[in-house]
Amino acid sequence: MAGEGRVTLHGTWASPYSKRVELALKVKGIEYEYVEEDLMNKSSLLLQYNPVHKKIPILVHNGKPIVESMVILEYIEETWSDGPRLLPEDPYERAKIRFWATFLHQQVFEVLVLVLKTDGEAQAKAMEQLHEKLKLLEEGIKGSFPGGSPAVNGENMGLLDIVVCSYFGPYKVHEEVLGLKYLDSEKYPLVTSWVKSLVQYPAVKESTPPHEKSVALVRYFREKALQSPAGVL
Amino acid sequence: MAGEGRVTLHGTWASPYSKRVELALKVKGIEYEYVEEDLMNKSSLLLQYNPVHKKIPILVHNGKPIVESMVILEYIEETWSDGPRLLPEDPYERAKIRFWATFLHQQVFEVLVLVLKTDGEAQAKAMEQLHEKLKLLEEGIKGSFPGGSPAVNGENMGLLDIVVCSYFGPYKVHEEVLGLKYLDSEKYPLVTSWVKSLVQYPAVKESTPPHEKSVALVRYFREKALQSPAGVL
Repeated sequence: MAGEGRVTLHGTWASPYSKRVELALKVKGIEYEYVEEDLMNKSSLLLQYNPVHKKIPILVHNGKPIVESMVILEYIEETWSDGPRLLPEDPYERAKIRFWATFLHQQVFEVLVLVLKTDGEAQAKAMEQLHEKLKLLEEGIKGSFPGGSPAVNGENMGLLDIVVCSYFGPYKVHEEVLGLKYLDSEKYPLVTSWVKSLVQYPAVKESTPPHEKSVALVRYFREKALQSPAGVL
Repeated sequence: MAGEGRVTLHGTWASPYSKRVELALKVKGIEYEYVEEDLMNKSSLLLQYNPVHKKIPILVHNGKPIVESMVILEYIEETWSDGPRLLPEDPYERAKIRFWATFLHQQVFEVLVLVLKTDGEAQAKAMEQLHEKLKLLEEGIKGSFPGGSPAVNGENMGLLDIVVCSYFGPYKVHEEVLGLKYLDSEKYPLVTSWVKSLVQYPAVKESTPPHEKSVALVRYFREKALQSPAGVL
């Protein structure tokens, strides 16, 4: 099969972008080596593989690097095409999945990060934006996927499940650090039940870091951002 | 074939995002109806088809809307799969095309717009950023596509050609409004010759608005942005 050969993922354990590649590899059942990168001290391999963005995740397949998480997910789907599917067959169904994945990728995470790195009025404003996005997602999912979760089939997470899970999978971590709930099952019943079912998937469970470790990291970043005048996270 | 049926594109004549859908449809030889939208007075169809972003372009195929230009290009490629190809067969080659298309989509256009809507020191800074991006593109294209242009074949523009052309195709319009050159054949020989060959493609020529009309519009937006304290374009 086209997907034979050596596979290495360069990532960091807390990055949602690494997480989605990790989940895709697990859904497909692809064996891979994992290299944890230190972003404060980037390896020469990282800089060689991704000279444009100097970022993770990087998937290296038989010596060839692929970068940008969404590009990597498409590559995995196309290369290991005989494994479980990440995208449905039908072009229109694929377009819907890609649309919502792009929405999450381009619009939701930056607002979530803003909530995590601010307080007071700035946080209230960011939280309002997050709720607007969650409302759009709730209504959009209801309209776009009348059958419920957009998993490719009941057994396997698909591309959109993976992207949702990479951002909202750690919602309990976020909620503990913030001391407030944002994933509200009364306001967003579909999104909430979707995320709660995704975190029960074996691939997600086995790749989820210990809760306290994640809380400590998000708390550290939050405190650092709050102390910085520019709010850099 | 899967791509049969009625096709309508909702766009605006000066949008690079509409332009790329228009070019993809022309490359594939797909007949379509074009609806020019007035973004100051959005049609009820536009709002119905794209309630999340309320933006163009929107491709409507047999009554079903597809939005987001990059999602639409993938949809066109997959639906009219027996027409000329927009993407190569090999997953790694596809990943390279998608990587550079994402780079242009996410990083280059906003800098180009910044150059067009500022002057003085702010413009000098934006121009410096644009040159950094052009340098990355020049080096990246050299490394990624040793054969030269990433056109899928010599006859047909591919997805990356289309994205490049949607931004830099009107470089003469930008240069006239700015009164300066940015597409420098000495600094960026590959990118410059690539863009210059793309604007000669029949599909591009027949979809390029009259030069003076484009100059007038870009000049209008530039003047409006310079008059606005927030520099809104």
